[in-house]
Amino acid sequence: MSPKITTELLKQLRQVMKNPKYVQEPVQAYIVPSGDAHQSEYIAPCDCRRAFISGFDGSAGTAIVTEQHAAMWTDGRYFLQAAHQMDNNWTLMKMGLKDTPTQEDWLVSVLPEGSKVGVDPFIIPADQWKRMSKALKSAGHDLVPVKENLIDTIWTDCPQRPCKPLITLDMSYTGVSWKDKIVALRSKMAERKVMWFVVTALDEVAWLFNLRGSDVEYNPVFFAYAVIGMNTIRLFIDGDRMMDPPVREHLQLDSTLEPEFRIQVMPYGSILSELQAVGAGLSAKEKVWLSDKASYALTEAIPKAYRYLTPYTPICIAKAVKNTAETEGMRRAHIKDAVALCELFNWLEKEVPKGTVTEIIAADKAEEFRSQQKDFVELSFATISSTGPNGAIIHYKPVPETNRTLSVNEIYLLDSGAQYKDGTTDVTRTMHFGTPSAYEKECFTYVLKGHIAVSAAIFPNGTKGHLLDSFARSALWDCGLDYLHGTGHGVGSFLNVHEGPCGISYKTFADEPLEAGMIVSDEPGYYEDGSFGIRIENVVLVIPAETKYNFKNRGSLTFEPLTLVPIQTKMIDVNLLTEKECNWVNEYHQKCREVVGAELERQGRHEALRWLLRETEPLARVQ
Amino acid sequence: MSPKITTELLKQLRQVMKNPKYVQEPVQAYIVPSGDAHQSEYIAPCDCRRAFISGFDGSAGTAIVTEQHAAMWTDGRYFLQAAHQMDNNWTLMKMGLKDTPTQEDWLVSVLPEGSKVGVDPFIIPADQWKRMSKALKSAGHDLVPVKENLIDTIWTDCPQRPCKPLITLDMSYTGVSWKDKIVALRSKMAERKVMWFVVTALDEVAWLFNLRGSDVEYNPVFFAYAVIGMNTIRLFIDGDRMMDPPVREHLQLDSTLEPEFRIQVMPYGSILSELQAVGAGLSAKEKVWLSDKASYALTEAIPKAYRYLTPYTPICIAKAVKNTAETEGMRRAHIKDAVALCELFNWLEKEVPKGTVTEIIAADKAEEFRSQQKDFVELSFATISSTGPNGAIIHYKPVPETNRTLSVNEIYLLDSGAQYKDGTTDVTRTMHFGTPSAYEKECFTYVLKGHIAVSAAIFPNGTKGHLLDSFARSALWDCGLDYLHGTGHGVGSFLNVHEGPCGISYKTFADEPLEAGMIVSDEPGYYEDGSFGIRIENVVLVIPAETKYNFKNRGSLTFEPLTLVPIQTKMIDVNLLTEKECNWVNEYHQKCREVVGAELERQGRHEALRWLLRETEPLARVQ
Repeated sequence: MSPKITTELLKQLRQVMKNPKYVQEPVQAYIVPSGDAHQSEYIAPCDCRRAFISGFDGSAGTAIVTEQHAAMWTDGRYFLQAAHQMDNNWTLMKMGLKDTPTQEDWLVSVLPEGSKVGVDPFIIPADQWKRMSKALKSAGHDLVPVKENLIDTIWTDCPQRPCKPLITLDMSYTGVSWKDKIVALRSKMAERKVMWFVVTALDEVAWLFNLRGSDVEYNPVFFAYAVIGMNTIRLFIDGDRMMDPPVREHLQLDSTLEPEFRIQVMPYGSILSELQAVGAGLSAKEKVWLSDKASYALTEAIPKAYRYLTPYTPICIAKAVKNTAETEGMRRAHIKDAVALCELFNWLEKEVPKGTVTEIIAADKAEEFRSQQKDFVELSFATISSTGPNGAIIHYKPVPETNRTLSVNEIYLLDSGAQYKDGTTDVTRTMHFGTPSAYEKECFTYVLKGHIAVSAAIFPNGTKGHLLDSFARSALWDCGLDYLHGTGHGVGSFLNVHEGPCGISYKTFADEPLEAGMIVSDEPGYYEDGSFGIRIENVVLVIPAETKYNFKNRGSLTFEPLTLVPIQTKMIDVNLLTEKECNWVNEYHQKCREVVGAELERQGRHEALRWLLRETEPLARVQ
Repeated sequence: MSPKITTELLKQLRQVMKNPKYVQEPVQAYIVPSGDAHQSEYIAPCDCRRAFISGFDGSAGTAIVTEQHAAMWTDGRYFLQAAHQMDNNWTLMKMGLKDTPTQEDWLVSVLPEGSKVGVDPFIIPADQWKRMSKALKSAGHDLVPVKENLIDTIWTDCPQRPCKPLITLDMSYTGVSWKDKIVALRSKMAERKVMWFVVTALDEVAWLFNLRGSDVEYNPVFFAYAVIGMNTIRLFIDGDRMMDPPVREHLQLDSTLEPEFRIQVMPYGSILSELQAVGAGLSAKEKVWLSDKASYALTEAIPKAYRYLTPYTPICIAKAVKNTAETEGMRRAHIKDAVALCELFNWLEKEVPKGTVTEIIAADKAEEFRSQQKDFVELSFATISSTGPNGAIIHYKPVPETNRTLSVNEIYLLDSGAQYKDGTTDVTRTMHFGTPSAYEKECFTYVLKGHIAVSAAIFPNGTKGHLLDSFARSALWDCGLDYLHGTGHGVGSFLNVHEGPCGISYKTFADEPLEAGMIVSDEPGYYEDGSFGIRIENVVLVIPAETKYNFKNRGSLTFEPLTLVPIQTKMIDVNLLTEKECNWVNEYHQKCREVVGAELERQGRHEALRWLLRETEPLARVQ
């Protein structure tokens, strides 16, 4: 990797920072955040502005350019990568280290008195604007919105914003019609006494209208906003995809509908002016509901007194609780995904000893097997295919420079998943194709114990996921080990593989309580720098639990694994398992045999079926 | 309990709310919070203003009186008590219930436009003022500080503010001299670049100067403030207690000291004007450090730009980490406390069957045995002595109206503790003096499993206590049971029995990480309304743990029980324990035998010793 040469680009950026064509007054600093206008985790190429200006293309980072300096804030995952990808014009600000200044403190230290700091108001979330603006103001500077994105003005070969055709999902996939979703949303709005709701997150727009897209890689979403009133529906979306007959029919655009379900289709770019018109027309006590992470531009369109901001929107919360059609779809998707992985692991078992399989080949093979399954759409994230020391890099993605050959002497970690029309998968298995060492087995078994502790946990209704995080670590902690990431995230239903408002992590506190129908991942791990990485990940469904007693009539919950892929028994030190844990593994494998076995049989994949049967032989615990 | 008649008092209060002698402009509402000027948990009689005006004397509650209404906000622990103690003038606002308005929302709903809401600026913490003021302002009202406390103006027989003699603690108790504590504090101040630190919490003043008092029941503190500069020490304290020769000598008031250690003693009431003088004299970049829970009055004395507010002060954090002298003192105190409880339980075992022991008699007997121990000062909180259904009332305190007789048919729960000059204790044991039912044993055993899960937990350095809370609940959760309180709180060293900044609770997130030397309680429970209550509480010391591995060189921690009182084996269903849990109980009891047994022997308490030996027979687990 050689760094991107940015001298000329920075010169151009510093010119437009003073150009009255773009800025009312010159700005002495310009902030380039990571995100897009929807605060998406995965962004389209046209939104990779921070990567364009700096060369650093990791998933998280904020660039700030002043007349003299250019600095990049990123976290520990990306210190090395950012250092490699950026040239000497840039200073790397290592977040999380004690001596690293915050963006605000740094700005205050380098800016001349009374400076203006510019940012694209569509990219910066309102809560972040507020924090930053306050800090700058108290030091005598001003954070100012710059309407035209200054990177876009110098990015001559910027790719077009994607505008790909839409997929309509019928009731067999969604369980609820978009009209019923609108009705439910309006009833939540009535409860909170708000008159308007602004949908800004791309997965929320997609979920609400039972539509999917492919504007962003891995996330089946499309660029759009929606503004829902008590009697109106406005959908802001570009392109001729609204001319597509199935889409028109799905949205009933040409039918005679009750007025409150008539969708007004408007240009994507008109959201701000339309929202400003809504804001201007509000009468006393009419509130507008927005996520507190919505962009500063859209939030400002509504006068402060009329805003109703919440960290989680009612759509985010409704979307997290899957209905029967969705959970059944997720089950089907996970069975197909398991078939693909049984094929893959059977293939790897034969091929790895030949020394011809690299991480990239293995990842491609996994995609090939998945793509053979019905309703496969695309991958749900970039496959983490890593062997030996690469396994210890938690967010690794094989590239030619790092590509390692799988062998019978190293642990192989595969974290991968797919989008199927009926569901989203995300599974990690850690395999050894030779003979693992006692130490590798020991570590694997602690991780497995943590995985089971979460998966088999019983907890009261109303419990937040972060309260389960320590269960996943207890066996590792007992031996002085740990892993430096959360234990689980919410998973969408043929939607984003990471979604709120629930999860299992020591880092969050404001997560919403778990409830039956929510789907999260359970993925403890252990990583030894320079040697190996271990992670065992299932996607699990929150289900009611039967318990002997029922305190305060609250009811209890537990998890049911949706992922049904064998956990390599070769890696397990059975003597470290309790009887209960041993039974859990055996029952899990029995279910893999029954459910995935039947599907392998049906698909005539006999060799993979034999592999499955071999890999799911019951463990025998020595007493 | 008959309610307090408040008609006349409310009339008087409403008059002073309009009286220009006390208010610049009439206030349409007046808030009477629970606290004192130091945000203490336990308050002196002269500070029980909310109880005076309403009759409700629970530990938590806020009264608001308007021209038309009087309302009391309190939480679930006190709904019944508040309803009994207040007359019809009052509306009870049940906090935690869905339909209960917040104080702000209620004020907005009942006040005429543009109202003034008064509060004593010395009683309301700054963070609470900020929240409330903002909410009121956005509805067109104003929160205004009323200098003279309006309750005090009508409280004709208000008790005097206590001003009792001080106790000086030498190095054998404190391990560190007050001068070294000042040096350490100044170094923390230098690190944060602050010039002044204002000590507002009573236990922080006491800790800093190695002094104790008895102005507040159960908490060995005295009314004082301190303001520490880089070269000055000001102690604000009333009474002739500063004339006491040992105190003068301890503080070296009459010695020739380096100027930076010379203590200026000033009247307690002069804190505000002195702090205002400090505030007025600040030059650029000179900051003043205060707790964000300090009173609005003191916080306002410092201009906003010069304030440095933190949730935990450096004293709070330093105080939590006990040094060797303190932990050794705590050990001694807990041994003495165990001697007293062995005596008590031995006595109860003989007396309860006679049917003559009530909850109050048992509590008094516990105090009697404790007071026989060396360096006993007072109880550390009001003894919870509860049998049968009273045990299910978590914050129960026996009074004549509820006083129940202990019997061989009911579970008895005793939560009690004492202040010794060398340490503070807090222990709960749950006993049965007849034959417990299988169900009672089952529940007790789940609670015990939770207690052990926390006590024996190993966790990395830097772990926050709230991450351990679920360990205490797991066994209960498995059977659909739970308890509705946190698992543990910090414990002072001959100081407050509840102290920050650490604890073990699902409710907090902003606790400071546990570190070796911190002392917390471990007290899971189970409560069945109308039948019984179970709680098992030890005070435990955070100590380094030896582990097989040491991930990232972080080191691990675990707990060592300081409390050494037998856990009634009769209540344990041994078959529900794992081998590891069974060993924990046996090793714990072995330590009780050795350590407390030796002390009982030394004190010639042979009958109690025989009881201890009987109660600590090893459990035998049936395989």
